[in-house]
Amino acid sequence: MTFRSNIELTANKNNSRLCVGLDPQKEHLPPGFNVLEYNKAIIEATADLVCCYKPNLAFYEALGTTGYQILQKTIKHIPAGIPVIGDAKRGDIGNTAKAYAVSLFNQFGFDAVTLNPYMGFDSIEPFISYTNKGLFILCCTSNPGAKDLQMVKVMRTNLPLCELVAYKAVEWNKHGNIGLVIGATHPQQLSRIRQIANDLLLLIPGVGIQGGNLESAVRYGGRNIIISASRSILNASNGPDFALYSRKAAENLRKQINNELAKQNQG
Amino acid sequence: MTFRSNIELTANKNNSRLCVGLDPQKEHLPPGFNVLEYNKAIIEATADLVCCYKPNLAFYEALGTTGYQILQKTIKHIPAGIPVIGDAKRGDIGNTAKAYAVSLFNQFGFDAVTLNPYMGFDSIEPFISYTNKGLFILCCTSNPGAKDLQMVKVMRTNLPLCELVAYKAVEWNKHGNIGLVIGATHPQQLSRIRQIANDLLLLIPGVGIQGGNLESAVRYGGRNIIISASRSILNASNGPDFALYSRKAAENLRKQINNELAKQNQG
Repeated sequence: MTFRSNIELTANKNNSRLCVGLDPQKEHLPPGFNVLEYNKAIIEATADLVCCYKPNLAFYEALGTTGYQILQKTIKHIPAGIPVIGDAKRGDIGNTAKAYAVSLFNQFGFDAVTLNPYMGFDSIEPFISYTNKGLFILCCTSNPGAKDLQMVKVMRTNLPLCELVAYKAVEWNKHGNIGLVIGATHPQQLSRIRQIANDLLLLIPGVGIQGGNLESAVRYGGRNIIISASRSILNASNGPDFALYSRKAAENLRKQINNELAKQNQG
Repeated sequence: MTFRSNIELTANKNNSRLCVGLDPQKEHLPPGFNVLEYNKAIIEATADLVCCYKPNLAFYEALGTTGYQILQKTIKHIPAGIPVIGDAKRGDIGNTAKAYAVSLFNQFGFDAVTLNPYMGFDSIEPFISYTNKGLFILCCTSNPGAKDLQMVKVMRTNLPLCELVAYKAVEWNKHGNIGLVIGATHPQQLSRIRQIANDLLLLIPGVGIQGGNLESAVRYGGRNIIISASRSILNASNGPDFALYSRKAAENLRKQINNELAKQNQG
C-alpha cells in the first residue's frame, strides 16, 4: 500500500486529518515520566484521533545516542496501520541523500519524510524512488524566517521562491508520492500553492502555538491536507493527567478541522 | 578558543587547508574492517595532513542506532586539537533548531556544523549564539541540483539566490563564526561570493570525484578556505593497504592546495 492510500485509510477510519507531532521536550515532561513513557502515553491517548504521527528527529537527537533508541521504540508503539512521518528535513547531494533514505526508510521504517529542497533534484531523487513511501518537500514554512528566502521573488516569473518549489515538486512527482509542507501562517501563499500543486498532499503545521489560521488552511487546502500540531497538543498540561488533556486538545482540533471541512463541502 | 582560531592553528601546524570527509560506505570498506576500525585507520593515516575532519551524519544514520555510537567513537579518536565539522545540513524552525544545536554541539561535541538556509534566520540563530563554535551555511553546493534553486535569479537585485544567501550570512555574522559552503564545481560563483563575503571562511567540497577545479577554488577563495575531500581520499584503495593509499591521496591533495596558494602569493 502506498503512503497516500494509507493516510486516506487512517483518515477515514479515525475521521481525522490531524497529525500529532511527537516532539518531546525534557523541560515539559510531567514529573516522573521519561521521554519514552511520555510518548507512549500520548500515543495511547490519541491513536483513534489522528491520521498519522510525526516525530521530529531533532528532539531525539538532542537526547544523545539513546535518543535514537527512544525514537525506534516510540515508532514501534504506534499501532500498526497508522502512518508515521519522520520530520527530518534532510537534504544533501545525491550520493549522501541515498544514505539518508536508507536511514529514514529502511532503518527507522518511516512511511514518509520531510525534505529540504535547497540542494535541488538530486537531493530529492533517492527518496522519490521509494514509490510506496511519501515525501513532503519544504515549500513555505510556518516560521518567521520563511520570508528570508522562500518569499524572495524570482526573476521573469515574478513568483516567490516557494512557488517555484511547488512547480518543481509537481514536475518531480512522477510516482505520486510527493507532498508539500506549507505553514498555516501563510494563508495567501497556501491558496496560490494549492492552485499550482492541485492534487498534492499538503502537510500544514503552524495552527497551534505559531498562530496560523485553521479556517483558511482548510478553505485553501481542501481535503488533501494533513493538519499538524505538536506543542498545542503535547503541552496542554504537564500535570499527572497530561494525557487526558492532550486527548482533549487533539479531539478539539480534530473537531475544528472537521467543522471547517464540512463548511467547505456546503459552500 | 574559537573554531576559527582553532582551524588557523591546526592549518599552520599541519601546513594544510585540507579537510578529510569521514564518510564511510559499507560497500567500500576493505575486507575484514568494520566502520569504526576503518575510520580509525584513516584518521591515524592522515591526522598530520589536515586542518580538520568532517563526518557527514548521513553515513552514520544509515547504520541504524549503532551508527551514532560509531560516530561518537570516531570523534573521540580524532587527536585533541584537530577541529571536527559535523556535516549535518540541518535546518528547522527556531524551537527545533535549538534541539539540533544541543545534539550537534553538546551531545556530539562538534566544533562546527553545516546548516541549510532555506528556512531563514530563526533556523540559523540558535547556532550563531554558540560563539566559540563554527557554522557553515550552504550557499552554492557542489551537486547538479544546485541549479534548481540556488542559481535562480532574484528580482530587483538580478542576483542568483546563492548570492543573496551570502549577503544574509554576512549580515548575520555578528560573532564572526559564520562560514559558507561553496562547491569547487562553480568557480565563477565562488569568485563572486568571495567578493560578497570578503572575510568569511569558505568550506569548499567538490574537487575530487565531483570534478571541481582546485586551481580556481584557491585563486578565487584565497587563504581563508577549507578544501574538503571525501571519496577521493577514502576510496583511493580498498585493499589491505588502503590507509597508505588514503595518506598518499591526502598528501597529494594538500601539496596541490599549497602549490596553488604559493602561486597566489607570488601573483
